[in-house]
Amino acid sequence: MTIRSIAVIGLGAMGLPMAARLAAGGFEVRGFDPVDQRRQLATAAGVRPADSIRTAADGADCVLLAVRDGAQAEQALFGPDGAEPALHPGTAVIVTSTIGAAAVGALAAAVAERGALFVDAPVSGGPRRAGEGDLLVVVGAPDAAIEGVRPVLDRLASTLTIVGPRPGDGQLLKTINQLLAGVHIAAAAEAIALARGAGLEPGVVVEALSTGAAGSFMLQDRGPRMLEALTGDPEVRSRVDIFVKDMALVAGLAAETHVPTPLAAAAGQLYLLAERAGLGAHDDSTVVTLLTGGAARTPEPDENRGERR
Amino acid sequence: MTIRSIAVIGLGAMGLPMAARLAAGGFEVRGFDPVDQRRQLATAAGVRPADSIRTAADGADCVLLAVRDGAQAEQALFGPDGAEPALHPGTAVIVTSTIGAAAVGALAAAVAERGALFVDAPVSGGPRRAGEGDLLVVVGAPDAAIEGVRPVLDRLASTLTIVGPRPGDGQLLKTINQLLAGVHIAAAAEAIALARGAGLEPGVVVEALSTGAAGSFMLQDRGPRMLEALTGDPEVRSRVDIFVKDMALVAGLAAETHVPTPLAAAAGQLYLLAERAGLGAHDDSTVVTLLTGGAARTPEPDENRGERR
Repeated sequence: MTIRSIAVIGLGAMGLPMAARLAAGGFEVRGFDPVDQRRQLATAAGVRPADSIRTAADGADCVLLAVRDGAQAEQALFGPDGAEPALHPGTAVIVTSTIGAAAVGALAAAVAERGALFVDAPVSGGPRRAGEGDLLVVVGAPDAAIEGVRPVLDRLASTLTIVGPRPGDGQLLKTINQLLAGVHIAAAAEAIALARGAGLEPGVVVEALSTGAAGSFMLQDRGPRMLEALTGDPEVRSRVDIFVKDMALVAGLAAETHVPTPLAAAAGQLYLLAERAGLGAHDDSTVVTLLTGGAARTPEPDENRGERR
Repeated sequence: MTIRSIAVIGLGAMGLPMAARLAAGGFEVRGFDPVDQRRQLATAAGVRPADSIRTAADGADCVLLAVRDGAQAEQALFGPDGAEPALHPGTAVIVTSTIGAAAVGALAAAVAERGALFVDAPVSGGPRRAGEGDLLVVVGAPDAAIEGVRPVLDRLASTLTIVGPRPGDGQLLKTINQLLAGVHIAAAAEAIALARGAGLEPGVVVEALSTGAAGSFMLQDRGPRMLEALTGDPEVRSRVDIFVKDMALVAGLAAETHVPTPLAAAAGQLYLLAERAGLGAHDDSTVVTLLTGGAARTPEPDENRGERR
């Protein structure tokens, strides 16, 4: 199979830059998102807009899902407007979203029944790196399926880690990635809040501790945004409600495998508390304000929580 | 003042290599530890052994504490065998241990009454780096006091961070360092245990995730030892009971400042559970075995918990 045309379903924070990057790489990209503004942005970025998932997928060699969660992925493929009619031998489905191994397993089985390839390929790295083809992509799929979609993955990934042959293997490693990321963000928030509470300059935590034994990518990346969150509202680069979803996937996997994860559980509760405090659509660095009490929070309308990312 | 002679009190994992490094740097170093074997090791490393704290401190320009906790520090200075008689104007006390800001504040006031300088200088980096003068030293002291002991600090530190002028400022930043370090170790343990529980090769977590958004110094440093702990008992480089003590300091500071730190609290409980499971004197990477249930644990006699470090 040779992939020439790609339907990108979901033009959110990750889907839009991925679609734009694929279009700039010579693929014929059709994009769908229920939000008009996202379709307009995609059009400006060289993506052909579609007015439904089915239209986007019709005739495409590859359907790439960049939706928010498992329910949206299921709808995108098998809902009333789903891509299902376009799936047949010679086509491929790539799931770039973090939706968990169980959801991916069910979708993979249903896609296999249509004879199409299925590649579990959740991505990590954020919007900017998505637009530069600098993502970490963790893949669960048999070699033959990976080879089939290789040009697409190579256009998006600077690092491609093949975790195992089962759809869901990629999701498992991504879930563990999110456990660490979610805990490290919360830990950075606690460190900055405690420094402030103890009368230290909070910036000293980020400056003095980021590169030593206490260092983490998240302390270095989110630390400066947390300092900003103490007095303002940082630009949204990664939403709180993404971690609400992802820590729930961690909790589900932990329950299923009977592995105690007390810190991940505490972090999950913190993101839920942040969401309830009106921070769901704010940058995840704003969780620090829950601990300092210094938040200027603006409750968000519920529909934002259903937005495709 | 010019420091020529130094009494090092506590020749444990950190005290011994620091004493040896100071001796090799031309200082006249007398060392005391209640454990015979530690004094013998110190002697072999060029340190003059003393049979009591008082003998070690008598006539010394500087008393450097490398003891386990606040109670030991108090005893070392003001106990029946304490260094107190040797403290007077022209001498200095350096506390390299992590004992918390409150304990340091009390000691600093008592030392000031004797006219001696007091420098709060907890260290970070572990035994190997202690022997190489490659420690992170976070200092709380007025400039004049720091200048007085500068040759000693410079011999031990590759990075010297002056947090503030108050004794205790160094302890505060070190406490926050330990919050992050303790949480990151526990997070790495959860990630490795969950990967294993989910049927992934646990090593893939360390290999694939250490350098990305999920990365931390502790995942990189303790990760490989945790993999070793799944089937054996790694060499002890940092003891579980050190984090029992340090997470208690974190909890104390959090309570005092009314800052919620749910992850640090959960991590503290994990170290306590590990200690109760007989892992107190084992490497802190062995906490992973609490989560996997794969531990081969050897309960330790209680006296080990009182050992000077």
